[in-house]
Amino acid sequence: MTSEGVGPGTVRPGGRTARVRTAVLRAAGDVLAEHGLAGLDLADVARRAEAGKTTVYRRWGTPANLVADLLTDMAEQSLPRTETGTLLGDLRANARLVQRTLADPRQGALFRAVIAAATCDREAAAALRRFYDVRVTEWEPCARQAVERGELPEGTDTREVIRAVSAPLYYRLLTTDEPLDEAAADRAAEAAVAAARAGVFTRE
Amino acid sequence: MTSEGVGPGTVRPGGRTARVRTAVLRAAGDVLAEHGLAGLDLADVARRAEAGKTTVYRRWGTPANLVADLLTDMAEQSLPRTETGTLLGDLRANARLVQRTLADPRQGALFRAVIAAATCDREAAAALRRFYDVRVTEWEPCARQAVERGELPEGTDTREVIRAVSAPLYYRLLTTDEPLDEAAADRAAEAAVAAARAGVFTRE
Repeated sequence: MTSEGVGPGTVRPGGRTARVRTAVLRAAGDVLAEHGLAGLDLADVARRAEAGKTTVYRRWGTPANLVADLLTDMAEQSLPRTETGTLLGDLRANARLVQRTLADPRQGALFRAVIAAATCDREAAAALRRFYDVRVTEWEPCARQAVERGELPEGTDTREVIRAVSAPLYYRLLTTDEPLDEAAADRAAEAAVAAARAGVFTRE
Repeated sequence: MTSEGVGPGTVRPGGRTARVRTAVLRAAGDVLAEHGLAGLDLADVARRAEAGKTTVYRRWGTPANLVADLLTDMAEQSLPRTETGTLLGDLRANARLVQRTLADPRQGALFRAVIAAATCDREAAAALRRFYDVRVTEWEPCARQAVERGELPEGTDTREVIRAVSAPLYYRLLTTDEPLDEAAADRAAEAAVAAARAGVFTRE
């Protein structure tokens, strides 16, 4: 599964409770990808997951809580970063991972839906922020190592460098119908490197 | 009204139909800012706008159509670009306009709501794309003039330069709870200039 570190379909060990959660989150992801946030109904998710309706209502309660738990799971299953030895190589790997995720029909629709959920629910917004925090923390060492190698100026805000790679890809997804292709990914990585080298992300 | 070219409250000339539209779109913007997309109800909008319920249902039909018309109106009322004589000056003015809009409680909430609407409705998505097309078209000459002045390489995709300014600000709004301050705006402008100068946005 191509993903920004997302693999809700992965089979994981665990008891009955863990298996139910896996099935429910998988079903929730399917519903969000197919019908968006407005189509997320707990009874429907329970039916698809072959889980008890009462269990699902008791454990998650609201669609927003389900979205928040899905994001927690997505963060837990994050893919590790790639290290290539150069900042541009590392950030290109990061950009292509984000691009493949957002360009994938299921994952792209899922991310659109969780971003929509975050705009109207505090719980979902906090979970979305935690998801990106985890992803930035995973990739931040690539920028830190670039500072250590002398590729970037001392005092660079290394988390901001990683965010700069994702920003144009998400902006393109949400506000244009232009293709999210590999060229867009490479441009995002190159733009982040050029700005970081120029000292734009250096803390005052 | 601070805005990315948005002034639904502006008094404009026109007949009764135009006045009704102005009042309805103003009310729709208020509801979206206060309650998000999920709270947008045509009967409530009609009541707030002191317009006939039948008129509102006949003219807009669905919340998504109302969002689309609001975006059309926002695009029509776009503020003109600032020209300062340098690319960095122009893009900083653009970044600060976007930042002030998104940092404003009403406008920020309104933009969150219309982005959410665009994730789940084709009509709203098309209207959102048209809104950004209009904004990019308004500001693109700043980058084109920079190419003509020799500040940027020939063959630069000048629309992409303008989009690069907005992207980190929207990404910050949607995925973090970090402040959207003037420093973030200036950093967005500087990053776009550094990347554009390095030739990142040059078409192959």
